[in-house]
Amino acid sequence: MEENKYCYKYPHPAVTTDCVIFGFDGTKLQVLLIERGIEPFKGKWAFPGGFLNMDESAEQGALRELREETGLTGAFIEQFGCFSEPDRDPRERVITIAYYALVKIQHVVGGDDAAKARWFALDDVPQLAFDHDRILREAVARLRERIHFKPVGFELLPEKFTMRELQSLYEAILDIKFDRRNFAKKMLHFDLVTQLDETTWPTARRAANLFRFNKQNYDELKRKGFQLEF
Amino acid sequence: MEENKYCYKYPHPAVTTDCVIFGFDGTKLQVLLIERGIEPFKGKWAFPGGFLNMDESAEQGALRELREETGLTGAFIEQFGCFSEPDRDPRERVITIAYYALVKIQHVVGGDDAAKARWFALDDVPQLAFDHDRILREAVARLRERIHFKPVGFELLPEKFTMRELQSLYEAILDIKFDRRNFAKKMLHFDLVTQLDETTWPTARRAANLFRFNKQNYDELKRKGFQLEF
Repeated sequence: MEENKYCYKYPHPAVTTDCVIFGFDGTKLQVLLIERGIEPFKGKWAFPGGFLNMDESAEQGALRELREETGLTGAFIEQFGCFSEPDRDPRERVITIAYYALVKIQHVVGGDDAAKARWFALDDVPQLAFDHDRILREAVARLRERIHFKPVGFELLPEKFTMRELQSLYEAILDIKFDRRNFAKKMLHFDLVTQLDETTWPTARRAANLFRFNKQNYDELKRKGFQLEF
Repeated sequence: MEENKYCYKYPHPAVTTDCVIFGFDGTKLQVLLIERGIEPFKGKWAFPGGFLNMDESAEQGALRELREETGLTGAFIEQFGCFSEPDRDPRERVITIAYYALVKIQHVVGGDDAAKARWFALDDVPQLAFDHDRILREAVARLRERIHFKPVGFELLPEKFTMRELQSLYEAILDIKFDRRNFAKKMLHFDLVTQLDETTWPTARRAANLFRFNKQNYDELKRKGFQLEF
């Protein structure tokens, strides 16, 4: 039997990080889940995450778990909440610091730790382990707010995309429909995207124009924030 | 010597809550600070806060500390971040879950725990204990975002106020100046405020009209969120 060798004058909670990973398949917002291989909640799906090491910040811990469980490195992550109900984990008191990540779906390969990682469309997510249903709701709410202030498409779309794909992304995140012309106008207004000399089908008459993000302006808007209204 | 009687298989961090309390004096945004009576950072100013009990959520802990240190009950508080740098507290590893509160300045009386609690204008805050300078910057940033989505004035203003006071509050939070007519138009557009049959000076010719928040509509907008653009 292993010793409980870390002792304190007052009781201490355990602290974990969890990471809600969003991707976009061109139509729907997707979330990456891991099937739990051990109790508690064995067989249930959950976010990649785990216990924080004592020598790392929560952000470092979240990035480490992401790497170990999904193979992802260098993802954009942002903290959006800390979940602390005393009984949220049956093992002991565990407080979790939650992040969301925005990634390109095709970049995710399996990591070392995860037996099973799978993308689920947001409207097709099963009942999750622990309080992860609540964590997911809050992650989506934060992403919806965030999109008004910071560009988030660069992390979610491929390098070249059509205006329709960009609009679909915004519609998927905000769960509303936009007028096609107004949407394009707003996007071009911020110089967020640059139209390329390429189309989806070089010879087709009704081929769609391709765009890429204007990286310099994108980073500047991301740093300073902006106000995107529809 | 007291025993370290709470033992774990893995090291555990300590967890605290801290609360950034915002008030408004009619001109400037203010923040309530407590002068620390003990080491570390004895004599420095800090936010009210303290160690989380094992049977309370972080929100319950933050509200308890608020009550003990400032006498405040029933304040509106919202979590805005968790601060976890491994060396942020010289005593041991301490992770803090940070909230901000919006209160009416006149409601704050001294509590039991705090030797010294004092309001500081935001541009007059001294260097704070721990990483509280950073926590304050992030709290202000969050409040600035929040004001676009949720009405926050009700918590900060007295029951009756002039349109100029409301405008000053928004200007103080956002650190920009508004056109007087446009501002009033936007506020009335959302039915957020109701004009009263009273003025600041019953007989004066240039007396200002008084308003109060339309509580029902205010609560509805707060629940659903709204989009406030300037």
